Amino acid sequence: MSTTRSTPTGAPRPPRISAELWVEVQQFYAHQMPLLEARRLEEFLETFTDDCTLEHLPFGWRFDGKTQLLKEMSARRGDAAKPRVDETSARRAREENIAYYDGLVYRYWFDRMLIQPADDGSLKVRYQAIVSMTDAGGKVSFEPTTVVEDLLVRRDGELYTHSRLVTHDSADWADKIHNPS
Amino acid sequence: MSTTRSTPTGAPRPPRISAELWVEVQQFYAHQMPLLEARRLEEFLETFTDDCTLEHLPFGWRFDGKTQLLKEMSARRGDAAKPRVDETSARRAREENIAYYDGLVYRYWFDRMLIQPADDGSLKVRYQAIVSMTDAGGKVSFEPTTVVEDLLVRRDGELYTHSRLVTHDSADWADKIHNPS
Amino acid sequence: MSTTRSTPTGAPRPPRISAELWVEVQQFYAHQMPLLEARRLEEFLETFTDDCTLEHLPFGWRFDGKTQLLKEMSARRGDAAKPRVDETSARRAREENIAYYDGLVYRYWFDRMLIQPADDGSLKVRYQAIVSMTDAGGKVSFEPTTVVEDLLVRRDGELYTHSRLVTHDSADWADKIHNPS
Repeated sequence: MSTTRSTPTGAPRPPRISAELWVEVQQFYAHQMPLLEARRLEEFLETFTDDCTLEHLPFGWRFDGKTQLLKEMSARRGDAAKPRVDETSARRAREENIAYYDGLVYRYWFDRMLIQPADDGSLKVRYQAIVSMTDAGGKVSFEPTTVVEDLLVRRDGELYTHSRLVTHDSADWADKIHNPS
Repeated sequence: MSTTRSTPTGAPRPPRISAELWVEVQQFYAHQMPLLEARRLEEFLETFTDDCTLEHLPFGWRFDGKTQLLKEMSARRGDAAKPRVDETSARRAREENIAYYDGLVYRYWFDRMLIQPADDGSLKVRYQAIVSMTDAGGKVSFEPTTVVEDLLVRRDGELYTHSRLVTHDSADWADKIHNPS
Repeated sequence: MSTTRSTPTGAPRPPRISAELWVEVQQFYAHQMPLLEARRLEEFLETFTDDCTLEHLPFGWRFDGKTQLLKEMSARRGDAAKPRVDETSARRAREENIAYYDGLVYRYWFDRMLIQPADDGSLKVRYQAIVSMTDAGGKVSFEPTTVVEDLLVRRDGELYTHSRLVTHDSADWADKIHNPS
């Protein structure tokens, strides 16, 4: 399915993958991520395996399994139609149980997707991501950039996220004011 | 050409589409949108059907047919080489006939494109979009995010936009200051 | 490999290209650009031909060949772990030899990629690009938007950048404060 090639002295070139697989992965994310943006959390998590993990680095927040993830997301994802909460950080929002996306439409922007198939049919997918937040008045702000590494697996012919590792480009991301007014 | 699949309890998975179709659609937008950014409005509209519609929600501005669209765009799209107009909103720009993109290079950024072919060969294409504006001095600002639904049809082998529905993520988008100084 | 088609009165439609080629180009950039973002400059330049050129317009900075490019990039790309340098511009950074990306994680965001193959197997690739900069505290800023035209060539089966022409959307980009605090 793929072979890793290398140039004489440089970093190994990425594998050649089939165009059908590339497009399937694009459509997978185009299905998955709008469910998160629409706060359809249970449907979003239907695109994850039951034993999925989600981890943030640096800092170490890690969620194991759909049940834990659903609980965390239900508490944090809020409601775009509600008023915005006071300025807070990701860390404080967790400590004080604040739905820090209240009053915001958030959208994920991905780029530079690199797909690396393994022999067992799973896919390592690496991309960079930035989250935009649009408030009711139309003000746009951005969360710090990240690099994400997903492991996608296939079950009964469909792709599912088995693990997601989000590495933040700012070491202090969890203490940044998340929803600047 | 496509079948909609569903997981046991979740939202239906997107259709499998051919990689060739995917790439054709990407190249279509890579042709269409730079014409708008370059203010080559008549050539931009050559990628729309004569009976095209463009609608903005919430608010209800709707343009029917190429002639109406060209008139509106010619009045509003302005000239990157001119000085920037005073701060205004989309609503006021229409009411007072202001070319509110004067002095700005605007670029559209699309992501999360989901392509759904219908039996008649037309394509429903959904994506999120954000517009960047770069002024002469290099300052960058962003318009509020949107979700766009296009209907593409095929005529003599080529794709054309038949309708474009732009749903803004901010209910008050039309009153937001469009060109902050 | 491709034919340019035209509509009766409009701009020529882009060529049809194979989906495999499209995906190969996406994976090429997903390999190339993270090396630049990670400051792995020598490995980044392994994806360029020895006689590559990089030019910025308007202004005219032009670098000829890998050796010149490596020297310039080594002097300017800095270190994300270092403190941020005082506010400066691209022009001043060159005149005073400042590593103006110190203290910043920068990421390139591409969109609207149009791929046009030539008969000799080379590829003209045009896209728009914006650079995000995330500082240690998580603040995000953006460089002015650009349009990039690459010429990719194939050597022993692999793609390489032969030339990169970056046209900035702001005429005064080189004097803009690059790293606002």
